Amino acid sequence: MKIEAKGVYVIAPTPFHPDGRIDDSSVDRMCDFFVKAGVDGMTVLGQLGEAPKMAHEESVGIVKRVLARVKLPIVVGVSAPGFAAMRALTQDVMALGAAGVMIAPPNTLRTDDSIVQYYRQAAEAIGEDVPFVIQDYPLTFSVQMTPGVIRRIATETKSCWFLKHEDWPGLEKISQLRAWEKDGSMKRLPILIGNNALFLDFEMERGADGANTGYCFPDMLVDVVRLSKAGRRDEAHDLFDAHLPLIRYEQQPGPGLAVRKYVMMRRGIIASDTLRKPGAPLTPAARAEVDYLLARLSQKDARAKV
Amino acid sequence: MKIEAKGVYVIAPTPFHPDGRIDDSSVDRMCDFFVKAGVDGMTVLGQLGEAPKMAHEESVGIVKRVLARVKLPIVVGVSAPGFAAMRALTQDVMALGAAGVMIAPPNTLRTDDSIVQYYRQAAEAIGEDVPFVIQDYPLTFSVQMTPGVIRRIATETKSCWFLKHEDWPGLEKISQLRAWEKDGSMKRLPILIGNNALFLDFEMERGADGANTGYCFPDMLVDVVRLSKAGRRDEAHDLFDAHLPLIRYEQQPGPGLAVRKYVMMRRGIIASDTLRKPGAPLTPAARAEVDYLLARLSQKDARAKV
Amino acid sequence: MKIEAKGVYVIAPTPFHPDGRIDDSSVDRMCDFFVKAGVDGMTVLGQLGEAPKMAHEESVGIVKRVLARVKLPIVVGVSAPGFAAMRALTQDVMALGAAGVMIAPPNTLRTDDSIVQYYRQAAEAIGEDVPFVIQDYPLTFSVQMTPGVIRRIATETKSCWFLKHEDWPGLEKISQLRAWEKDGSMKRLPILIGNNALFLDFEMERGADGANTGYCFPDMLVDVVRLSKAGRRDEAHDLFDAHLPLIRYEQQPGPGLAVRKYVMMRRGIIASDTLRKPGAPLTPAARAEVDYLLARLSQKDARAKV
Amino acid sequence: MKIEAKGVYVIAPTPFHPDGRIDDSSVDRMCDFFVKAGVDGMTVLGQLGEAPKMAHEESVGIVKRVLARVKLPIVVGVSAPGFAAMRALTQDVMALGAAGVMIAPPNTLRTDDSIVQYYRQAAEAIGEDVPFVIQDYPLTFSVQMTPGVIRRIATETKSCWFLKHEDWPGLEKISQLRAWEKDGSMKRLPILIGNNALFLDFEMERGADGANTGYCFPDMLVDVVRLSKAGRRDEAHDLFDAHLPLIRYEQQPGPGLAVRKYVMMRRGIIASDTLRKPGAPLTPAARAEVDYLLARLSQKDARAKV
Repeated sequence: MKIEAKGVYVIAPTPFHPDGRIDDSSVDRMCDFFVKAGVDGMTVLGQLGEAPKMAHEESVGIVKRVLARVKLPIVVGVSAPGFAAMRALTQDVMALGAAGVMIAPPNTLRTDDSIVQYYRQAAEAIGEDVPFVIQDYPLTFSVQMTPGVIRRIATETKSCWFLKHEDWPGLEKISQLRAWEKDGSMKRLPILIGNNALFLDFEMERGADGANTGYCFPDMLVDVVRLSKAGRRDEAHDLFDAHLPLIRYEQQPGPGLAVRKYVMMRRGIIASDTLRKPGAPLTPAARAEVDYLLARLSQKDARAKV
Repeated sequence: MKIEAKGVYVIAPTPFHPDGRIDDSSVDRMCDFFVKAGVDGMTVLGQLGEAPKMAHEESVGIVKRVLARVKLPIVVGVSAPGFAAMRALTQDVMALGAAGVMIAPPNTLRTDDSIVQYYRQAAEAIGEDVPFVIQDYPLTFSVQMTPGVIRRIATETKSCWFLKHEDWPGLEKISQLRAWEKDGSMKRLPILIGNNALFLDFEMERGADGANTGYCFPDMLVDVVRLSKAGRRDEAHDLFDAHLPLIRYEQQPGPGLAVRKYVMMRRGIIASDTLRKPGAPLTPAARAEVDYLLARLSQKDARAKV
Repeated sequence: MKIEAKGVYVIAPTPFHPDGRIDDSSVDRMCDFFVKAGVDGMTVLGQLGEAPKMAHEESVGIVKRVLARVKLPIVVGVSAPGFAAMRALTQDVMALGAAGVMIAPPNTLRTDDSIVQYYRQAAEAIGEDVPFVIQDYPLTFSVQMTPGVIRRIATETKSCWFLKHEDWPGLEKISQLRAWEKDGSMKRLPILIGNNALFLDFEMERGADGANTGYCFPDMLVDVVRLSKAGRRDEAHDLFDAHLPLIRYEQQPGPGLAVRKYVMMRRGIIASDTLRKPGAPLTPAARAEVDYLLARLSQKDARAKV
Repeated sequence: MKIEAKGVYVIAPTPFHPDGRIDDSSVDRMCDFFVKAGVDGMTVLGQLGEAPKMAHEESVGIVKRVLARVKLPIVVGVSAPGFAAMRALTQDVMALGAAGVMIAPPNTLRTDDSIVQYYRQAAEAIGEDVPFVIQDYPLTFSVQMTPGVIRRIATETKSCWFLKHEDWPGLEKISQLRAWEKDGSMKRLPILIGNNALFLDFEMERGADGANTGYCFPDMLVDVVRLSKAGRRDEAHDLFDAHLPLIRYEQQPGPGLAVRKYVMMRRGIIASDTLRKPGAPLTPAARAEVDYLLARLSQKDARAKV
């Protein structure tokens, strides 16, 4: 039932009109762009999809539209302050045809046991036939999961699908999980990396199966993953390094999403870079910096000419 | 438009059947009990009403039922991870006849400016004609509001209704706000205290207008507020002190709500002390301790015979 | 080598002159008072001994003075941001005759493993022949230790002496540890409770060996522990409940220490209630409240006449 | 009295022998290297100088040795859990000839007022003639300072010397402070940037006066600052971008310092990459990654041949 998670599962932003309404035609255009870029799957309604700012009906509406447009596995972020809302959204989107859901831990969790218990209860709440993704992003959620905790979640819940790995630092975590798989003390758990791909180059070499992030040039993510898997190390790093100044700029918590939307707007993928409140648009100074980074990037990667 | 906030606005728990469904007849019985106990208003869907564990329709359903039963001002907790869900619930419950809403800050807020901005944006999002309550509970939300921040919120948003004061320690905060009102540097802001009434005795003397909490003997809260307002200090403290061992026990974060529901069940107000997950019932040892506290209390306050 | 930890190990404040210098004669008077009150041991330089505000030489000086005056086991708080300073103070005070040291976790620790590792490295750093106390106080240190973590520390470090239990809520934690000892899955670990004794009554009944806190009436702590151990439950609760209004008032983080010093000054035990910065003295309103609480208390416990 | 803060104030690591003792000859060699690299000043005993792991005498010893070797302004990190230890170290190092001290906020501070008060009390405690540096590093200290808070500190304490700016994201903060200086609502406050220089390129363009960080190629920092000040924008970015893959790798919290020491060891600047506990050395996999990054870097910047 679980689809093999590998390659690039792009994190989709939610395009808005300048007045804050969802921009359906930008949703369509974005979907087409992702497919053309060669992604293997798509995650909607993650943190950077501004999920918490959406009403339930809006969330369902977006999923419906994306599923109608894209014939790829769609993961839906269903993180919520309580299990009732999480279950409600999960049931709606799974009925529509989503491939699985993503769950971030509430930022009050502290002990190993409480994290494992949370995922156990969440898996039970949404239904144990629904594949779910662990989102391990301490920078945003303030929840620290050791490799041992991830192993426990993967072992104690049958429906655990893959790990969205965005711990930072996180390279040794991938190595540890892969070592456990190798010595038989853990079953295979696919790992797709996030954190705006800031360490994609080495994370692939440590054993990641791909990327699950939304950097504004997903086409680059596809190529780096492909090159890395093909063992073409220097080429992978050359391409990655060309994008790194912009990756770093886009990875800033807060303005990062505004950067991503601005570049996608400049690339013609979405019509407006509007964020819902409390998000704020880029300042003119920041826009000029992104423009400068794009100009420099276009000298190294032809696709970046926008 | 804003009702004068004073006396006891009791925080209502949400009664569940043992299988987790909402128990409507317990809702009714609880409403009747609160009215008979002499409360001045009621807050539903607060943290201890297990609001985050409710789906939207359930939340609306509870409010509808309570409003049909009780002819008192009803405040509804509408805290949500984003403004869209907050607005949606607010519109629904205000249309039903709620008197106002309560908003807790998201626990990522740190700086003074970010807290003030949050309340400004929230007030705008729900509509500036909707009276809202500031919930100031750092122990639970990890957000620390200085008196100056509260003054700014009360000044910069017209629709601020009252302060649910549950900072701890918090006595000096009340004194500071009242001093500013006295010297004219702040307009009058009603203060109802929470934190399970652990400092109700002195908070009244510092200038609070009443209580906004859900201790399992709201009848005692009503009496202490009345005695304190009447200047009958020793009597107020005598009654309060008789309840303090149980107040303290019920104020424990986590098991506190289970204690409250257990006592309300023993008092015949609700049928079951069930909590929704991840809440857990009291252990047998804890139940025995509460029974012992009730037995001791009943020797000092006749109402406590259960 | 490890002394049996039981009864009352009082937490000693550090008496200062109004100008902030250490007040030696108050140290002596306080020591004599504690001995007369019947305590079994004494902890100096804890958080409420204002340890972090002391220079190294001052810390050593206090320990020397106390050891010269008191023939009881003395525990010294040696928590420090790094192991070098922790080791330096430990060596100095153990050479002087201290019975052991107390170590609080740095408030950056999150995962189970990191907490256990910290205590393992600390035990190694100070020398594995030095008995150490685990301070488990999440309210102050933001570090949450499960019973399993405590068991691991107690098992993996030979020099672990006892647990200063001040988790809140914490009753089930004591029961869990005692259950493990009973079923043989954990060796005996003495438990003395802190958190200003707010739950001393029930903590004793759950299996604590005594108290390790500094409430301004340690004489009461001694009696409650004695009554509870003797199975005189109602008497223990009666005495405890008489003090609870003041215990609660003194337990406030921040002003709590000022309350404690103020009462000890009023009781003639120390000469001044001065705190070092950033500590602040009680406001006049707070002093009046404490005076009122003392007056009420004296009607129930003759010793409280001050 | 305050030296003009500009250019590169390098953050010095503390070199240890493999057994953990301070390695004096590496200290000397490192000092010589920094001078030759063209730095304008030096900060010792910062977080990445492993200051909290040092005993007082060790700290003083390092400062003495550095001051004897280097004729540049030396800043000394004096952050401590209390003012007594902060004052003691400050007095010792200022007497030896340090130019000023650096103070990080304790990670319990939350409100604007408490942060400003902390710096006011710290400035008073160390003596108001001692120039001090504000360390604004929320990622490590969990304390968020708005531009307004920094303005208040700079205004309310005469001895504030410069801002070590390492907020992230932080570009708009620099712009805001510079705007206030321009419109006269704030006096000039020098800004040196940290956070391992991850945004040095744009931070210089936003108005920073230089860098105050310890990236393993400080020679590059010197050149980027120089090029940027000279308006040679593209050259500054070209050089910066060549180093960015390694900068990013070294900026990882935790292993970052091990990376820095490893590279400095490979460059022959220090003899060993030993960290004191709880620090851990790089894994073999991480070393190989750094080797690979160095090999790639050396193709773009000849100095990186090691």
